[in-house]
Amino acid sequence: MTHLVYPGALHTRFHHALGAMHLMSLAINLLKSKGHTITDGEEEAAILAILLHDIGHGPFSHALEHSLVTGIRHEDISAKLMQDLNTHFDGRLTHAIEIFNGTYPKKFLHQLISGQLDLDRMDYLNRDSFFTGVSEGVISFDRIIKMFNVYDDNLVIEEKGIYSIEKFLIARRLMYWQVYLHKTVISGEMILVKLLERAKELAAAGENLFASPSLNYFLKNDINEANFFEQHENLEHFTNLDDQDIYAAVKVWTKHDDKILSTLCKMLTARNLYKVEMGNERADTDRVNFLQDAAINLLGIKPEEARYFVFTDSIQNRAYHAGLGNIKILMKNNDIVDIAKASDLSNLESLQKTVEKYILCYPRGI
Amino acid sequence: MTHLVYPGALHTRFHHALGAMHLMSLAINLLKSKGHTITDGEEEAAILAILLHDIGHGPFSHALEHSLVTGIRHEDISAKLMQDLNTHFDGRLTHAIEIFNGTYPKKFLHQLISGQLDLDRMDYLNRDSFFTGVSEGVISFDRIIKMFNVYDDNLVIEEKGIYSIEKFLIARRLMYWQVYLHKTVISGEMILVKLLERAKELAAAGENLFASPSLNYFLKNDINEANFFEQHENLEHFTNLDDQDIYAAVKVWTKHDDKILSTLCKMLTARNLYKVEMGNERADTDRVNFLQDAAINLLGIKPEEARYFVFTDSIQNRAYHAGLGNIKILMKNNDIVDIAKASDLSNLESLQKTVEKYILCYPRGI
Amino acid sequence: MTHLVYPGALHTRFHHALGAMHLMSLAINLLKSKGHTITDGEEEAAILAILLHDIGHGPFSHALEHSLVTGIRHEDISAKLMQDLNTHFDGRLTHAIEIFNGTYPKKFLHQLISGQLDLDRMDYLNRDSFFTGVSEGVISFDRIIKMFNVYDDNLVIEEKGIYSIEKFLIARRLMYWQVYLHKTVISGEMILVKLLERAKELAAAGENLFASPSLNYFLKNDINEANFFEQHENLEHFTNLDDQDIYAAVKVWTKHDDKILSTLCKMLTARNLYKVEMGNERADTDRVNFLQDAAINLLGIKPEEARYFVFTDSIQNRAYHAGLGNIKILMKNNDIVDIAKASDLSNLESLQKTVEKYILCYPRGI
Amino acid sequence: MTHLVYPGALHTRFHHALGAMHLMSLAINLLKSKGHTITDGEEEAAILAILLHDIGHGPFSHALEHSLVTGIRHEDISAKLMQDLNTHFDGRLTHAIEIFNGTYPKKFLHQLISGQLDLDRMDYLNRDSFFTGVSEGVISFDRIIKMFNVYDDNLVIEEKGIYSIEKFLIARRLMYWQVYLHKTVISGEMILVKLLERAKELAAAGENLFASPSLNYFLKNDINEANFFEQHENLEHFTNLDDQDIYAAVKVWTKHDDKILSTLCKMLTARNLYKVEMGNERADTDRVNFLQDAAINLLGIKPEEARYFVFTDSIQNRAYHAGLGNIKILMKNNDIVDIAKASDLSNLESLQKTVEKYILCYPRGI
Repeated sequence: MTHLVYPGALHTRFHHALGAMHLMSLAINLLKSKGHTITDGEEEAAILAILLHDIGHGPFSHALEHSLVTGIRHEDISAKLMQDLNTHFDGRLTHAIEIFNGTYPKKFLHQLISGQLDLDRMDYLNRDSFFTGVSEGVISFDRIIKMFNVYDDNLVIEEKGIYSIEKFLIARRLMYWQVYLHKTVISGEMILVKLLERAKELAAAGENLFASPSLNYFLKNDINEANFFEQHENLEHFTNLDDQDIYAAVKVWTKHDDKILSTLCKMLTARNLYKVEMGNERADTDRVNFLQDAAINLLGIKPEEARYFVFTDSIQNRAYHAGLGNIKILMKNNDIVDIAKASDLSNLESLQKTVEKYILCYPRGI
Repeated sequence: MTHLVYPGALHTRFHHALGAMHLMSLAINLLKSKGHTITDGEEEAAILAILLHDIGHGPFSHALEHSLVTGIRHEDISAKLMQDLNTHFDGRLTHAIEIFNGTYPKKFLHQLISGQLDLDRMDYLNRDSFFTGVSEGVISFDRIIKMFNVYDDNLVIEEKGIYSIEKFLIARRLMYWQVYLHKTVISGEMILVKLLERAKELAAAGENLFASPSLNYFLKNDINEANFFEQHENLEHFTNLDDQDIYAAVKVWTKHDDKILSTLCKMLTARNLYKVEMGNERADTDRVNFLQDAAINLLGIKPEEARYFVFTDSIQNRAYHAGLGNIKILMKNNDIVDIAKASDLSNLESLQKTVEKYILCYPRGI
Repeated sequence: MTHLVYPGALHTRFHHALGAMHLMSLAINLLKSKGHTITDGEEEAAILAILLHDIGHGPFSHALEHSLVTGIRHEDISAKLMQDLNTHFDGRLTHAIEIFNGTYPKKFLHQLISGQLDLDRMDYLNRDSFFTGVSEGVISFDRIIKMFNVYDDNLVIEEKGIYSIEKFLIARRLMYWQVYLHKTVISGEMILVKLLERAKELAAAGENLFASPSLNYFLKNDINEANFFEQHENLEHFTNLDDQDIYAAVKVWTKHDDKILSTLCKMLTARNLYKVEMGNERADTDRVNFLQDAAINLLGIKPEEARYFVFTDSIQNRAYHAGLGNIKILMKNNDIVDIAKASDLSNLESLQKTVEKYILCYPRGI
Repeated sequence: MTHLVYPGALHTRFHHALGAMHLMSLAINLLKSKGHTITDGEEEAAILAILLHDIGHGPFSHALEHSLVTGIRHEDISAKLMQDLNTHFDGRLTHAIEIFNGTYPKKFLHQLISGQLDLDRMDYLNRDSFFTGVSEGVISFDRIIKMFNVYDDNLVIEEKGIYSIEKFLIARRLMYWQVYLHKTVISGEMILVKLLERAKELAAAGENLFASPSLNYFLKNDINEANFFEQHENLEHFTNLDDQDIYAAVKVWTKHDDKILSTLCKMLTARNLYKVEMGNERADTDRVNFLQDAAINLLGIKPEEARYFVFTDSIQNRAYHAGLGNIKILMKNNDIVDIAKASDLSNLESLQKTVEKYILCYPRGI
């Protein structure tokens, strides 16, 4: 939904997968040039693992997980799809899967895919900066990769790279607030969640809705964490879904008889999004009630329908999660030091604080 | 279809319309700063005219004009939509329409939208260069605009800008052959033409096909040049169509019972495109027959169905069309000279030659 | 001396002055568009003030202030040159000088030239990032300027700009350590300080040294803070000096009879610079003594000459100086809040800490 | 002198040498990846040859060859310096010299350094485009290099690269007229030629002129094609000369007693350059005489001194020199075809025409 704010941001997960693959090649060549052994098989496995790391994401990942396919973790779907591919390719992805899961002995290969400084983030921060034009996210991925090293099977950063890492962590934080958690982006996602919720309710009530066969499948059936992997059909329909199924349906639903569904769909297609207030405290109940009453009047809906249009939620972000595999610095004297100690600023401590913000959504025109 | 070759090229006509609007503002400010009178109303009209200049394009414009909506010119649809908007806005677009049509007295305003050096081309060449990464198309739009002037109500270029113009004309030619007429792009478009043709035939035969209501409308009804403007419903359905209607349907049709339709749809979604041969001469009939026979064997189809898979066509391009409003150079001594005379090279004459190339398409694996 | 590390960094103070002027135009237009009154005269004055803000810098500013023209502040020279220009232009620079000095009533005009968020820094950070290729310094100058506003005659930043400001302060800190205070840059400057010191001593002792007339003037005469402004000749020779006087002399001095001078000059021209150790503590006296003894042996110099080749010093940097005019944020509710309070992170507090580092220089090969 | 028009263009021959070296590495890797044998020794030799290809250029190469060191070809100086280095390095540059001279059997290595499509041009076109901001010179060096191949020991281009080559040839032509032969650039060079001529005359007449020892050497001695290589001292002083010797002297000479010298030097330092008229025909004698009389009056000089201020000259350029090693295209059917035949346009023929232009220079204010 980022394109609602930054129209250039139409790049896809396909671009990202190719970019991350490219960074993996650079990183592996660099580590080999520093004398670390990485076999051709390990190189292929690491490249496959990062190529496939996001394969379990559906369209509008976050929104769907909260409406059509409740509670299913994309990591589990990625793992399942990799297993299927591994069967198809006679076990050729075994090492790739071990690297992806973090069970392969050379831990640094996993850390390049998923860790504080992984190539996944390095690609998406720069790519998103480029396509949104938000220069705050530009990072020196080439310089950071040149500072990579391996110590005791773990990925470490050479001392000279400290400032680039600091910049990387800060860039990530800034991109969260300026792009990924931008109010308008959240507003678009929230409308999508609400309209899919509504569509599913209507389908459950026997209503006929225009939908591609795979979208229809998830509207009609109650697929969730518990039963998703029980039937292969679920996975097939899931991988078949993409943005176009959703958008094509939303466009048709703008003319649906159900007022709630058609109103939400028109809000999204006409870019007449919720107004979003974001703050450090949860919105006051009186204010929410007041806004719901106003929405009831404005839209001519029933009280129990107000929750589609006026509601609260919360979002959070933490740039650097020290518990989850700290960034280790390789000092010139060969000591290994946590970056929080190696840096001369307390920035990094503050980056560990989880920042939580509360949001309040309601229709424009109230 | 350019994204099939250059994956970054996902930018849209919306971006282009905004970009061309921006260039119009720059051009108008420049001309005003050189002492030419352009009223606020004229400025608004010119900006509206370029904002709307492409509004009549449907999705996959070229492909649809050869399949679903045969022979309808997008310029006519643009004109009709502008008239409708003009009615809606109580005549406020009258001047914009005159500028668009070329009937407004200050001819240079029309030439900025549609001419040898219009802002339309200036935007799309640079934009397409940027998103494809083909640097051959980079042009100095800012420098060319700075060289704009008006003489006798016509747009002219100051002498100092000759080399930039030369570069612009050449860039256009190179972008045609490297991007717009790239074999893989043409191959993608051809598959789309053929599969829509087939879908329409099946619909005519009473087959049921998954399609959004608007796409269904064009599959079921025979809308053409002659009857398009007779019913307003046609226009409504047409403006309602976008890429997503097409792609969502193509994805579903990969599982259709009709072998021709499902084969073509699978070729497109799996990027298993036609092989395209391009040359200066029309393909030999014997070779076409040979390939058709091979296709019949390969795909297990009937002889009369071979034409969906093996066929010839031609494409052409001319960078500079001297007949259609030459580029006039304003020399330092205030003479007006045609650029072909002002330039010290014969490049420009050669750019006037229409280059026609013949293509031959057939399935891979023959 | 930055080009010793980043060869592309050959850009000059002239580029910077033009760039800062350009940013001033953007900022003034922006503030006018937000309804603040800035007369044509004030606009001219502000633009002149920033054009001239660095005019008092000599070549290798820092190095010369520690050798040839001890203790003279470039701000005082800038002020004097502006006064001279003001006399020449019949008082037309009066407002520019008031803005430069901070005595003009509209304080924000001064703050645009010299403050926490001035256009001076905004230009040089981006320019230096571009020419060095150190992407850590890229800042969104256009976005920050768009967030400018004026409140009570002071420059303030609108709330939406907080993250961009945070990025700006951090970029500055990173550029200090990666570019301006890079060990090799410091090493080059230190050699220049030492060789100019030595040249001045030789000149005082009556030695003849190749030098342009203006360089010769500062070698032969003892010009300092106390007497600089007493004679106009001093200023004339000072403004006449540039990098070329220094470099042309250094190249000739590589063949001078004085071993110390020629050794230092050869070290600089052959890029055989001091080795620099940088740390959080002052170097141990024993280690300095040891290195001096080694240098005496290596170079065949006398003990009292060792100080030209082995010595310690300190450098410091503080990204954000809260005392000196805090950055004020204009909240959506029109409150004015210090950025340290408005930001949700403690970053900014840590940026206020002065970071001091100690350096130790000695010749390579010891 | 390009920086007189494009202030950013302060990049140096050192940057260019490094850049060309980098392109050589890319090209050699590419050719090796296509199966051509290039030994490590050949790779080193080719890289050294391109690193050193311009080493014989003095400062302001063209200007000095017409004043201080008449008639000496920089290629001969390069060759001599390489021989000296070869002696110093015990013959390790032997293959590099053979490649540079074109006597090494694998001719394509020489063609990469000096030919229609050499890496020298590829580097400087892109570099000069970047630093001047003239986007007309941007070329797809990476794409062209990817199209390189070797056929019968000669460098050829694969058919797919035709459009990129066309763009490259045109870019070169455009850069000539917009940058290298820009009127203001020529004007600056002409002033330098004239003032060095004058300085040499004064030196010959026994006048004392401020100059570094090496510049002084060329002012005092008559060094030319015939005697340059007779004494090693000549080469030493020549390699010792750089822009700074010239600029530092010019700055001092602005105060010289000789009116012609000081006037020319002030014109250059104050950027009060000759006005230059450029045309397809030689300037009329009457007009030259008229301007000389006007200059005599304006400047208060003697008739025989007018030639320093009013004079004519000619310049020429040819983008593609078919005689000198044509660009060969490797067609898909493995035929080798000259690009003029392979391209579908007559552009290339027109690029072979030598374009000659006549210039007339005279002081501003006449």
